[in-house]
Amino acid sequence: MDELNLQPPIEAVDVTRVRVMVDAIRARTTIEVVDEPAALDLAGRATVPDPKRPGAVIFAAGVEDVVTVMNLANEFQIPIWPVSKGRNWGYGSAAPAVENTVVLHLERMNRILEVNEDLAYAVVEPGVTYRQLKAHLDRHHPTLWCDCSDGPPDGSVLGNALERGLGVTSYNDHFGTLCGLEVVLADGSMVRTGGGEPGRCHTWNTHKWGLGPYLEGLFSQSNFGVVTKAGVWLLRRPEAFASFTFDLARDADLSRMIDIIRELTLKGVLASGTHVVNDIVALAVVTQYPRELVGRCSRLPDATRGEMCRRFTIPNWAFGGGIMGTSGQVRAIRSELRRSLRGLGRLTFITDGRVRVLEGFRALMDKLVGQPALQGALGSIFRALSGKSVELLPLIPHVHSVMKGQPSDYFVRHAYFKSPLPKPEFAHPDRDDVGGIWFAPIVPCTGQHVTALIALCRPLFERYQFDFYAALLMQNSRSMIVLMSIFYDKSDASETAQAKALYETLSEQTGLAGYQVYRTGTQGMAKLFKSAPEFARLVRQLKHALDPAGILAPGKTPP
Amino acid sequence: MDELNLQPPIEAVDVTRVRVMVDAIRARTTIEVVDEPAALDLAGRATVPDPKRPGAVIFAAGVEDVVTVMNLANEFQIPIWPVSKGRNWGYGSAAPAVENTVVLHLERMNRILEVNEDLAYAVVEPGVTYRQLKAHLDRHHPTLWCDCSDGPPDGSVLGNALERGLGVTSYNDHFGTLCGLEVVLADGSMVRTGGGEPGRCHTWNTHKWGLGPYLEGLFSQSNFGVVTKAGVWLLRRPEAFASFTFDLARDADLSRMIDIIRELTLKGVLASGTHVVNDIVALAVVTQYPRELVGRCSRLPDATRGEMCRRFTIPNWAFGGGIMGTSGQVRAIRSELRRSLRGLGRLTFITDGRVRVLEGFRALMDKLVGQPALQGALGSIFRALSGKSVELLPLIPHVHSVMKGQPSDYFVRHAYFKSPLPKPEFAHPDRDDVGGIWFAPIVPCTGQHVTALIALCRPLFERYQFDFYAALLMQNSRSMIVLMSIFYDKSDASETAQAKALYETLSEQTGLAGYQVYRTGTQGMAKLFKSAPEFARLVRQLKHALDPAGILAPGKTPP
Repeated sequence: MDELNLQPPIEAVDVTRVRVMVDAIRARTTIEVVDEPAALDLAGRATVPDPKRPGAVIFAAGVEDVVTVMNLANEFQIPIWPVSKGRNWGYGSAAPAVENTVVLHLERMNRILEVNEDLAYAVVEPGVTYRQLKAHLDRHHPTLWCDCSDGPPDGSVLGNALERGLGVTSYNDHFGTLCGLEVVLADGSMVRTGGGEPGRCHTWNTHKWGLGPYLEGLFSQSNFGVVTKAGVWLLRRPEAFASFTFDLARDADLSRMIDIIRELTLKGVLASGTHVVNDIVALAVVTQYPRELVGRCSRLPDATRGEMCRRFTIPNWAFGGGIMGTSGQVRAIRSELRRSLRGLGRLTFITDGRVRVLEGFRALMDKLVGQPALQGALGSIFRALSGKSVELLPLIPHVHSVMKGQPSDYFVRHAYFKSPLPKPEFAHPDRDDVGGIWFAPIVPCTGQHVTALIALCRPLFERYQFDFYAALLMQNSRSMIVLMSIFYDKSDASETAQAKALYETLSEQTGLAGYQVYRTGTQGMAKLFKSAPEFARLVRQLKHALDPAGILAPGKTPP
Repeated sequence: MDELNLQPPIEAVDVTRVRVMVDAIRARTTIEVVDEPAALDLAGRATVPDPKRPGAVIFAAGVEDVVTVMNLANEFQIPIWPVSKGRNWGYGSAAPAVENTVVLHLERMNRILEVNEDLAYAVVEPGVTYRQLKAHLDRHHPTLWCDCSDGPPDGSVLGNALERGLGVTSYNDHFGTLCGLEVVLADGSMVRTGGGEPGRCHTWNTHKWGLGPYLEGLFSQSNFGVVTKAGVWLLRRPEAFASFTFDLARDADLSRMIDIIRELTLKGVLASGTHVVNDIVALAVVTQYPRELVGRCSRLPDATRGEMCRRFTIPNWAFGGGIMGTSGQVRAIRSELRRSLRGLGRLTFITDGRVRVLEGFRALMDKLVGQPALQGALGSIFRALSGKSVELLPLIPHVHSVMKGQPSDYFVRHAYFKSPLPKPEFAHPDRDDVGGIWFAPIVPCTGQHVTALIALCRPLFERYQFDFYAALLMQNSRSMIVLMSIFYDKSDASETAQAKALYETLSEQTGLAGYQVYRTGTQGMAKLFKSAPEFARLVRQLKHALDPAGILAPGKTPP
């Protein structure tokens, strides 16, 4: 406990005390609170194992409600777990770290308060989603693009940024594009970072660091305040755009490919939104387990995986990204990509025109549904010309449009890879009780580090009998996130136990090897900063200064 | 004083108590301390008015010394003012904010601890200078470039970054390129941000945000810790490079030019290192006051300024920057610049080859020193061909090389614009008792905001009879720093009083108009966050948590 009198870690919040606070909210305010057992069961669902059930869920309609709730939480000494949209799948969804913590849901605070077209930023509330922001920009501000993740389109723009999630364009570092926060602190006071809002300071949403110490970082991946509003930088729609995919021919060249990607990014040829994916990632996106294997094995047999990859023309490793700029810049980048990757595999550029051609071809194939011979012949011709199977036709337009910041339900359906349910139009793994845990160490972006980490983790996935899913995301020019997903069957107790054991082993082994995760969910918070005690002490000192009673999100930082 | 029991602001530290601490340092350690009156007089010099004299100056040789000094400072309750190199000219130099504060000088901690060529970063101590780092890279790691400011080459790389100074390349946001800090806190404890150093965490210097709350921002423009080591990101030497200058033809187009620069930067055509300068900036760089006016007027008469501008072919407004990338990218950017700026003025590209030609020409002119007629004829031809006077010949290679991150003494000599001394080879305004105050508001990067701020400030410079010096620096794609310098004669009490009055009026008027400075020196610290009391309160809470006795740099944040 160090020298500070912090609250000891608690196992669970006392439900009878929660009830007293809920009664007070109902008696004194018009704020909606839910505490029916069935609703709380649903609210406590998550794709990770052993999620904690909240003691109640409060729906704030505005910043005044957040202030009111924080004041009541102090009065009754009840801890609060703020949630923006709760789409934190793989990291704990909307569930708190400590049983019976009261969830403060911000999804109803969903106003886009401002879009500044000249200066390319928006000011939004935490309930604003990628889908909503994109639709708003397309309709009212067509010169602006937003970044999005390839995760849930209904995820919160601010929630993802505060957890330091990644996107797909040159604005992929979502926390890096936040500028100007309004925050309600644990004591119920409200503060705006830097110099404050326009009127007091015109650069609140344009100058990230403000004046004096830069404090916005305090409110990311932490429990120091509830962010109720923030500026988000947007991209200027480029004159020209192309996306590309690259299929690596030989596994032995993975290390070299990583080094090439780093150099291209350092030199400003590629944006850092570049993603590398392995075969399981691609398979999970485009298909599902063969019906006969669902529920019968926790890991695809090698032969089956190989056969599926051949059928779908999926390589062991591929990468892709977007290219934007003037026509001249896009041309120069395409030519440099060709030069750098020559001899290593197949590089394919995708343009809006090419997407239209592919969509026409797909429509033609659909029309031939009663003529399998003709379909088959056309498919073979397509495969011979493009090197891709016709089964990949639906994928390509989604790859192309997500790189422009168009959120898509397409990719997040990968969560249903092992599920007995067919992939739904709108994926919602919590609703469908799908199991999945993200494990996301970050490594220096060198072929050596990336392949060393993979060599450490892949055998562990094999030992615990799970598919090795690895997406390598450039966080910046120098760091790569090795995002691994453990898909497991929540209805199978032993598979769930194995998934937890794999997660723990991965955490321990990669930590010992000197790799840190870039982000953790509720499943990993208890062991945060284990190897950095003096940093943990500093975090505790600051937490104690701002929240001595531990009201905000207990369990999120070390007690 | 809010609810916190902070130390009240003090006028001066008690010198007798300082002496007790100095004696203890001498008795118990081998750390060098200086407290001879003449040395302290020099240490208390600054280009700003009324600098405060330190009570002693301690020279730390390593992080252990910093820890020892902080422990002794706590034991004797003596405040400490850390200084990296002290080249903070225009913002207070090496002098503290409160009289008799003990300066902890870090210039002897000047080791380049690591250069990672693959990942393009260095780990350096606070005493490492731009000149030193550049020379080290040129010699040992020629694939790497560093950014530098166009300020003093012997300035500290870390000191400038922690004060959030600006450079000239795409890595111009110096705080933005710091990654991984080692910090000694006020209580003498040492912490490394994020996950800590390699061995414990491989990404300490490659992943800026670390894991958990991002705390590095706490240590910039503040008094929360002494940074003793940090990672600094470096640029990969590009395949192709060109610099350019643009002379605006008509003042009325300034607003339009600013909007064009913003769009070019938002679109990734220009890097944010772009600088716009007015006539006085250019004159101060290339020449000095006419001898007969030195000491006789505090502001150039309009006719004289106009005549000097014509002679040197200096426009009212110009801007310049660097272009890097593959040859194809540089070509595409050059063509886009030409397209965007067509009809607005004269665009000139500078390449290494062109610099060699100009240097050859300059050597030829020097050889003709005895033949003024020939010199004059050659000069006229040069002017007719290039649109530039031969007097600008020495400038061009410096503009070109600084954009590549080559620090230069050339620009900082502008401080001697009004000085009776000739411009020295190595500028040192403190040594030469030159007067200068930076005033640096930041505005949203629109022509409207920039011209509104200029319209507010220029008449104040006229009213107080000072030359209106304005350099507009892109801090990022959305914000522009309007850097103004007040050159004044320190030996003239009334001119000094006018300079102070101008500074105060500028601060007040721009603050009322909603513009914040991006940085302040000791001259402005007393009024920090005047318009943001709730932010000031948060800063105080954090300061109190880390430094309840106010040991570190009193006066730097609001008491």
